[in-house]
Amino acid sequence: MKEDGLYLTGSDSDITIKTFLKNDKEIFESIEKEGTIVIQGKYILDIIRKLDSEFVNIEVIDGLKTLIWTETSEFNLNGIDPKEYPNIDLEENKSPVVIDIDVFKNIISQTSFAVSKEEVRPLLTGINIKIENNKMECIATDSYRLAKKIVELDKKVENLVNITIPGKNLLELDRVMHEEGNLEIHIFNNKVLFKFNDMLFQTRILNGTYPDTSKLIPEDFAIDFTASRTKFYSVLDRASILINDKDKNIVKLEVKGNDITVSSNSPEIGKVEENMDVQNNKDSKLNISFSSKYMMEALKVFTSDEIELLMNGEVNPIIIREIGNDNVIQLILPIKTY
Amino acid sequence: MKEDGLYLTGSDSDITIKTFLKNDKEIFESIEKEGTIVIQGKYILDIIRKLDSEFVNIEVIDGLKTLIWTETSEFNLNGIDPKEYPNIDLEENKSPVVIDIDVFKNIISQTSFAVSKEEVRPLLTGINIKIENNKMECIATDSYRLAKKIVELDKKVENLVNITIPGKNLLELDRVMHEEGNLEIHIFNNKVLFKFNDMLFQTRILNGTYPDTSKLIPEDFAIDFTASRTKFYSVLDRASILINDKDKNIVKLEVKGNDITVSSNSPEIGKVEENMDVQNNKDSKLNISFSSKYMMEALKVFTSDEIELLMNGEVNPIIIREIGNDNVIQLILPIKTY
Repeated sequence: MKEDGLYLTGSDSDITIKTFLKNDKEIFESIEKEGTIVIQGKYILDIIRKLDSEFVNIEVIDGLKTLIWTETSEFNLNGIDPKEYPNIDLEENKSPVVIDIDVFKNIISQTSFAVSKEEVRPLLTGINIKIENNKMECIATDSYRLAKKIVELDKKVENLVNITIPGKNLLELDRVMHEEGNLEIHIFNNKVLFKFNDMLFQTRILNGTYPDTSKLIPEDFAIDFTASRTKFYSVLDRASILINDKDKNIVKLEVKGNDITVSSNSPEIGKVEENMDVQNNKDSKLNISFSSKYMMEALKVFTSDEIELLMNGEVNPIIIREIGNDNVIQLILPIKTY
Repeated sequence: MKEDGLYLTGSDSDITIKTFLKNDKEIFESIEKEGTIVIQGKYILDIIRKLDSEFVNIEVIDGLKTLIWTETSEFNLNGIDPKEYPNIDLEENKSPVVIDIDVFKNIISQTSFAVSKEEVRPLLTGINIKIENNKMECIATDSYRLAKKIVELDKKVENLVNITIPGKNLLELDRVMHEEGNLEIHIFNNKVLFKFNDMLFQTRILNGTYPDTSKLIPEDFAIDFTASRTKFYSVLDRASILINDKDKNIVKLEVKGNDITVSSNSPEIGKVEENMDVQNNKDSKLNISFSSKYMMEALKVFTSDEIELLMNGEVNPIIIREIGNDNVIQLILPIKTY
């Protein structure tokens, strides 16, 4: 608590968040004395949420005991000496990268699901952000699929940026970032500080060189069809009902003229065949198998109903995008079934 | 499938449910042939829910393979020979007990939470139903608290009823019983059949003699106060915030004049004191400790905001009821804290 308002800092080993509540008559009836105290976050949240009076008194006694009271309630919390709290540096850069909050929230939701859930290759649990001039490229991959989003920044960066941020930390940032406006990204060697409105959010960066995925995405495709995203999603959903192994969820796709067939076969349970009309742009044929779970997760990130599926054969990656738009690319590796 | 409609039977070791869909042009476009097939319940539910066409064709081939298809989807399910399905007797009584569905749903929600979660004394995992003449008494207890509900039936029963039905089975009945109307209860030696609309729901009965709890509830009380149920609930909720042992959740209640204080003390975390106005009907004093979790669950079953708390001392049961109304009684045993 300072004269200008209340500073709240929370931190675990990965993330530090600092917020500020400005000294304003509508929020603070009176500030009697400045001071600092450390209390357990989960209790203070529950207390404030469950108190039913509009104003609440907070007072620190003997530098440690924290009294929180209203007319009828009194909480007496054991505090911790602020001297024992780690000194976390939340410095800012002179020239942060600036991006619209909504755009950055979209980046997170369109890529984060594709990060690896396994800690074997720690770098793959992160989202890689590369910035060159004013082009920002964000990639997540678990080595079976890849999600890529490209956005243009208003301002060029001076130095090339290439950092990988833990995916779960960015999901946490997404959860606390509600307001509209600009997000400042202050990049350091081993950490990134996000700044928006009255909040600072700092996370560590993953060490190491993110794999080069630029050659994974082909430039030409032999197979190219356009389909309704929502219909294709339902077809995949139904084709997966009888699959026992929900982790793999392998379905077969057959492209033939303007018809596609998605099928699955689980000998003990039964089989499914789903048919759907598409627009086969190159009138080509193909039989390919892939994870319906990955395909459905990839389909979810798009907003328009028409999508394009691009392929080169049964062992080459499948590309999903909105028609002619390479700003959001989803890639799925096929699964060999023979 | 019969000419008059579709009969569906599902069963585990505990519960059997049989439903009927009448042959009606709006439901069945055509019934080509009668027959019986056994298929895995979870798949058929998912298939029917996820198909997007209004009508669906179902056909059994070779007595086992079950085809479910629409214009674009085809499911080929492996069925099981109906001869291998256990022969479950769903006979009815001549004179079932009849009760309003909503009344019985209330009985379940006002008692089931108090059954024992431990299998050490299996009988206590059930809800005991006793009927004498036209008085039906339903009790659940885990030996630390008790929930009791009394309802009057329209018709007298000929023979005394005293059965104990597994609490979780009654919760399952509650989940499938949506309609309004009458519920028929057909009671047998080792099972009960519930019948409502076009549904039969049969459950086993727990063996043994349910403990006699009639002497647990005192007739006279030295302490008697009236309080707002919702305010008392919030007070208990806040008084429990700092308690570490969420299983026990022990709070202390002090009654003094028209004030009560609910407090808790967790030396490592801190302490809470909550004050509230009540109407002390006997102007008595008391200090008593109990589980705030049990008290909050008991408070939830009432509908009116004014409730009465009745006590006889710090080692005697606490009774909670709506004012002067003994049809719903909640009892909580105090906890000795010294």
